[in-house]
Amino acid sequence: MFIIEKKDKKTKKRIGKIETKNGAIMTPVFMPIATKGAVKNLTPEELKKLGVDLILGNTYHLWLRPGLEVMKKSKGLHKFMNWGGPILTDSGGFQVFSLAKYRKITKDGVEFRDPDNGQKHFLTPEQSIQIQLDLGSDIIMVLDECLPFPCTHEQAEAAVGRTTKWAERCKTYFERKGISNFQFSISKRNPKSKIPETIKRPLLFGIIQGSVYKDLRERSARELLDIGFDGYAIGGVAVGEPRQYLWQVLDWVLPMLPEDKPRYLMGLGRPEEIIGAVSAGIDMFDCVIPTREARHGRIYKFKNQNSKIKMTMQNVKFYETIQIAKSNFAKDFWPLDKNCDCYACQNFSRAYLCHLFRAAEPLGQRLATIHNLNFYLELMRLLRQ
Amino acid sequence: MFIIEKKDKKTKKRIGKIETKNGAIMTPVFMPIATKGAVKNLTPEELKKLGVDLILGNTYHLWLRPGLEVMKKSKGLHKFMNWGGPILTDSGGFQVFSLAKYRKITKDGVEFRDPDNGQKHFLTPEQSIQIQLDLGSDIIMVLDECLPFPCTHEQAEAAVGRTTKWAERCKTYFERKGISNFQFSISKRNPKSKIPETIKRPLLFGIIQGSVYKDLRERSARELLDIGFDGYAIGGVAVGEPRQYLWQVLDWVLPMLPEDKPRYLMGLGRPEEIIGAVSAGIDMFDCVIPTREARHGRIYKFKNQNSKIKMTMQNVKFYETIQIAKSNFAKDFWPLDKNCDCYACQNFSRAYLCHLFRAAEPLGQRLATIHNLNFYLELMRLLRQ
Repeated sequence: MFIIEKKDKKTKKRIGKIETKNGAIMTPVFMPIATKGAVKNLTPEELKKLGVDLILGNTYHLWLRPGLEVMKKSKGLHKFMNWGGPILTDSGGFQVFSLAKYRKITKDGVEFRDPDNGQKHFLTPEQSIQIQLDLGSDIIMVLDECLPFPCTHEQAEAAVGRTTKWAERCKTYFERKGISNFQFSISKRNPKSKIPETIKRPLLFGIIQGSVYKDLRERSARELLDIGFDGYAIGGVAVGEPRQYLWQVLDWVLPMLPEDKPRYLMGLGRPEEIIGAVSAGIDMFDCVIPTREARHGRIYKFKNQNSKIKMTMQNVKFYETIQIAKSNFAKDFWPLDKNCDCYACQNFSRAYLCHLFRAAEPLGQRLATIHNLNFYLELMRLLRQ
Repeated sequence: MFIIEKKDKKTKKRIGKIETKNGAIMTPVFMPIATKGAVKNLTPEELKKLGVDLILGNTYHLWLRPGLEVMKKSKGLHKFMNWGGPILTDSGGFQVFSLAKYRKITKDGVEFRDPDNGQKHFLTPEQSIQIQLDLGSDIIMVLDECLPFPCTHEQAEAAVGRTTKWAERCKTYFERKGISNFQFSISKRNPKSKIPETIKRPLLFGIIQGSVYKDLRERSARELLDIGFDGYAIGGVAVGEPRQYLWQVLDWVLPMLPEDKPRYLMGLGRPEEIIGAVSAGIDMFDCVIPTREARHGRIYKFKNQNSKIKMTMQNVKFYETIQIAKSNFAKDFWPLDKNCDCYACQNFSRAYLCHLFRAAEPLGQRLATIHNLNFYLELMRLLRQ
């Protein structure tokens, strides 16, 4: 279900394809964030036009709202949001970090307290998998314990231990439930499908934790490899640590991972980080940057046509960002990026975008989101060449 | 430039066509509001798909932001917002009402004070026309004085007097400037255009004021007819008056207006009001209801297929509204309206829209806006049958 089509001679970069029950994903891949079942401001139709292969939904948020009953009645997230392509769902493990104030960890799982109404929700590894099965996820993530930076070796060690135990429980539960559960929906979708048996089921990925400690990262990787997953994610990065740790973690962990499984770096990153991580051998990325910064009028663009080529060299500043609401764009009738073929650049000027942001017109956020996602997807297309 | 294609035998309804320099408008017509150069949440492409013939821009708001220099450099509002169809621009007269706290009226025009920075902006009738010419408007409105309800006869009389004088000044200025100004952009747009000479220029509409006073409404209509315009609008309605006054005002004014000029009822209204006004002989409408209420999750729908036919009878409740964020729609997998062919209804369920609104996902407002506008446009299509 993961085929490496090409390997770079100079770096550890790989170009490949992940087969899922809802279609193939070309890697390296960037997945836009659809935490609550929608990429903010965009329709699935627009995502398709942009060339999006895979989107990211969130177990915890969708579990709470709209809730599992709705999800089941809707026959899963794909149908609910009208997205026919692959969906990866995070397990709720990131909320252990992002909602640290509102959760309590036990050996059995995580208790979340709703900050609005005080209601308590207990998430076990088994439940996380079941929710993701109910969502109809194509790539399911195990429940992990994601710690902030800094944390002590002792804290990180405990988290690695729990993460391994939870990963085991996830795998066990998944094997018991996962495959049979999805025969029906697949055969209905593609009655004459020639998809090999193995990918009639969702894929299950493990998540390596261990903070910035070499021994713990290595232990976490080793233990997850022993359990065996369809792919391996590196979690607990982009949680406040100085970014040089990222390269260390990749250096420690990536050589341990098998060639023939996809590798997913969770929650990253800036374009130069993505390029660096691809060179190190990462296949999958998700990040709020393009969509979130679009909503604040921060536009990503290649510096010039040529820079697209140069971009494979790390450290070269091949791109720039502009704050489109600034007054210097008020009379600028060029597109956001004159070499960009996205809907925003093909139809509107910087002056218009500048006006929309200054006038708080919601169309501005939408057009900026289209453009920034296109920038990230174009970056991935170039990396796949 | 206005052709009546059909008259109803039982009512005063007319079906017609207004020719403008940017294309024809089928009447009765409903125009979505694009106050600041964008219909909130939607692209021009989506408006076109919805079948929008005409949109409404606002002189006052666009004058202040992005300002005239940007508008001139952009060669008008059409190009700025990438909308190729006709645009009607309100004159700033409505802001005399809506920004009452921040304006002072003199015989020469209106002084607006910016509530944010205290800056003063003086709008004369001539300036309002010049701004609308700079915007490249297809249908230009004269500057009028729009009063709230209630106002005394004396106040209304003074406003009618000023409105007439300003209308004269607008017409004079327009004749001096308007026609020649637009030859160029038209001939460039349609070098081999067969549009008759008369509609190579924007149209100029007068606005009848007079509050709820018969003598003043009649006087205002008479005086504007003496000046002579391409069309006549009824202003100063939907400004807080009990709605029965509307029908009185139409009764007083409409018989005075020539058959062969379009009639525009400003700022209205609810579907049943539009139907009533069409039966009384109104051709043009604008209203924030479908777009604004969409943003608050209030969805308009026909009660059933049959009700579309019954709808020509006033007083029949042929439509209903639903508050899509209510929990009774959380598990409702029907479309907003199962007989509706809009993008939202063809692709998403009530349950999904309900979720988007409850999760404050901006896609919800966008889909609801598409649906509500389609409802209003469908209403107009049915009225034109």
